[in-house]
Amino acid sequence: MAVAAQLLRGAARSPPALHVAVAAGRRALGSAPPGLAAGRGGRRAALAAAGALGGLALGLWRWQQAAMAASEEEEEEEEEQLRQRFMAPPVSGLRELRRRRREVRSRMELLLMETQAEVCRALAALDPGAAFAVDTWERKEGGGGVSCVLQDGEVFEKAGVNVSVVFGLLSEEAARQMRSRGKSLKAKDGKLPFCAMGVSSVIHPKNPHVPTMHFNYRYFEIEEADGTKQWWFGGGTDLTPTYLNEEDAVHFHKTLKEACDKHDLKLYPKYKKWCDDYFYIEHRGERRGIGGIFFDDVNSPSKEEVFQFVKSCAKAVVPCYIPIVKRHRHDSFTPEEKLWQQLRRGRYVEFNLVYDRGTKFGLLTPGSRIESILISLPLTARWEYMHTPPESSKEAEILEVLRNPKDWVH
Amino acid sequence: MAVAAQLLRGAARSPPALHVAVAAGRRALGSAPPGLAAGRGGRRAALAAAGALGGLALGLWRWQQAAMAASEEEEEEEEEQLRQRFMAPPVSGLRELRRRRREVRSRMELLLMETQAEVCRALAALDPGAAFAVDTWERKEGGGGVSCVLQDGEVFEKAGVNVSVVFGLLSEEAARQMRSRGKSLKAKDGKLPFCAMGVSSVIHPKNPHVPTMHFNYRYFEIEEADGTKQWWFGGGTDLTPTYLNEEDAVHFHKTLKEACDKHDLKLYPKYKKWCDDYFYIEHRGERRGIGGIFFDDVNSPSKEEVFQFVKSCAKAVVPCYIPIVKRHRHDSFTPEEKLWQQLRRGRYVEFNLVYDRGTKFGLLTPGSRIESILISLPLTARWEYMHTPPESSKEAEILEVLRNPKDWVH
Repeated sequence: MAVAAQLLRGAARSPPALHVAVAAGRRALGSAPPGLAAGRGGRRAALAAAGALGGLALGLWRWQQAAMAASEEEEEEEEEQLRQRFMAPPVSGLRELRRRRREVRSRMELLLMETQAEVCRALAALDPGAAFAVDTWERKEGGGGVSCVLQDGEVFEKAGVNVSVVFGLLSEEAARQMRSRGKSLKAKDGKLPFCAMGVSSVIHPKNPHVPTMHFNYRYFEIEEADGTKQWWFGGGTDLTPTYLNEEDAVHFHKTLKEACDKHDLKLYPKYKKWCDDYFYIEHRGERRGIGGIFFDDVNSPSKEEVFQFVKSCAKAVVPCYIPIVKRHRHDSFTPEEKLWQQLRRGRYVEFNLVYDRGTKFGLLTPGSRIESILISLPLTARWEYMHTPPESSKEAEILEVLRNPKDWVH
Repeated sequence: MAVAAQLLRGAARSPPALHVAVAAGRRALGSAPPGLAAGRGGRRAALAAAGALGGLALGLWRWQQAAMAASEEEEEEEEEQLRQRFMAPPVSGLRELRRRRREVRSRMELLLMETQAEVCRALAALDPGAAFAVDTWERKEGGGGVSCVLQDGEVFEKAGVNVSVVFGLLSEEAARQMRSRGKSLKAKDGKLPFCAMGVSSVIHPKNPHVPTMHFNYRYFEIEEADGTKQWWFGGGTDLTPTYLNEEDAVHFHKTLKEACDKHDLKLYPKYKKWCDDYFYIEHRGERRGIGGIFFDDVNSPSKEEVFQFVKSCAKAVVPCYIPIVKRHRHDSFTPEEKLWQQLRRGRYVEFNLVYDRGTKFGLLTPGSRIESILISLPLTARWEYMHTPPESSKEAEILEVLRNPKDWVH
């Protein structure tokens, strides 16, 4: 996750205690969807997302097209359908999003909400006893977010899927930090109006034969003093297995490559390498996982084209990952394999707390919504002094790949 | 742990695989002490430290005095006694330390070794089934260290006590980073000869009613271009309970205060506050624990006086902590209490990886001995989304103290 994404996740000023239930607050659902249940302390609503609300097959984009021609009544009906499909109402409100439906900013927000709902439902369908807790939260200075978390399920140890949409004024320094290229932006009175949005997720399964998966897609707009709008996208999807399974690795990378290739054949190799470089735990000399794709600060060839590319990537999350979970969720495993998973979880924590630009930026931003930032940490982790797997073991095999990344598809 | 200490712990270039057994290498023991056993893979020696080697009551300092007048034969006998008392031979070698026995640098190194042995034996005596693994390691550029680790015992989940003594040449930038005051030092050709040494320890017990304890004492010397020697001491001892026990908190702070008061009545209040300020997890609005003392960059009133103060602090570690372990190691506890301990361990990891200047400095220094730096991490930790203890619970009680530090002694 890059700075950008974490700003999204991290910029809320509301303390944890202020998070509101889905069914409460000004952005309340018109009517509670089926499966909505009171959570801990009555402050959280748990949305049983196990496919009860039906597929998203109808497609948001058809709605966007149709809405332009439809009557007000039809529009309201479609709006209601969307409301029931998302995990919670979008931060900007459906009415506002409809009003600005031609803008990439609005379409991106809908894509984020749709991706969140797709992923949550696909995961919940594989873990029937578990349910996603849904928290909506507001940011005092503008915007807010929707955090969905499934914890201690049968299949998933911890699965978090966050959407954040925040806006307001940034300092020039903060704006510079947000861009990996560090380009300076001209502000009026030292402040820059900005809008930052993203979906971010980490899925930690229980079974050591099911890998951890992370994805994050984000969009930024900043307005300079002369009215010029700077914009860029960032994101990526990557896999962190406890044990190497070549078939899974190839499937994962191949699915990502296909999503990239639809737009430009140069993208996959470039973003695959960027991913290997970014998720590097320098003090261990290892990557966090077996990679995937990662990109930041992308603003060419055009806003529409980059948006379409990001959309392809977001749509690839479920086909990348879900087949791998299905294949291994019932695999048997030994206590030793579970222990190795816990040690690898420790490395995951090390990467996220020591290196991840976004997490660091979020943690150091006063008033961040810490609970959303740290959803990425596993439920449990372990550190053993001087643990070294025996040569030629399965543990040594994955270490080798983490030390020397492989090309999984050509 | 401050930058200084971690430099000590972190500056070794030897990769983990190069660590040598106590009974091997150029700094080998003359004869293996009783209880020395082959460790994992034959590369580590486990020293059963459960008091088998007798107390340190004779006193290093008496030896220093006596040695000046003693015959060579007597000296060698005394050297042999020391050799058997320490966990491993000192980095600088006993002969060299004897030759330079009037220098604070040598006396500090002996104090570090003595403190390490005292603490390891006191801990091992409380956990009879467990043994400290002892690793000695060398730093290519100069110096080395002795790491003692007890893992997965009956009483202790993970207890690490490291000594490092490293020397060589520092860049001006690195030297500046080492000092909290950031004073710039004049180097010859951009390099400064330095010597850095310290003992550093984190003890994580299994029982949630036994607190985690950390201490670290360190000494630095840097030689400027004109031959001026800059020197300073740093250190501290602090306690991180899972549950608040006022009696323990008072005992811990009172023992530290007594150690400080022998030297200057102003020290305890000043260093108690410094400790509360330093161990602050800003993104949580909590301290890591209930404090103790912390100081850095201390070089007045005189080298001898600061050394005597540091010696008092180091001697206070066992009386601070061991009575608390004895009092609670057999306390019964519930699974819920164990879970709360695991969540607090997560916060410990957050502090150490995100804020601790020393850990960060060590991790970012190429060639660090990572395993020694990260001994401080617990064996196991846990992160739950939005965990909030109920009001008026025992969990809320400790949180209150972590948010608003108390004065335990006046």
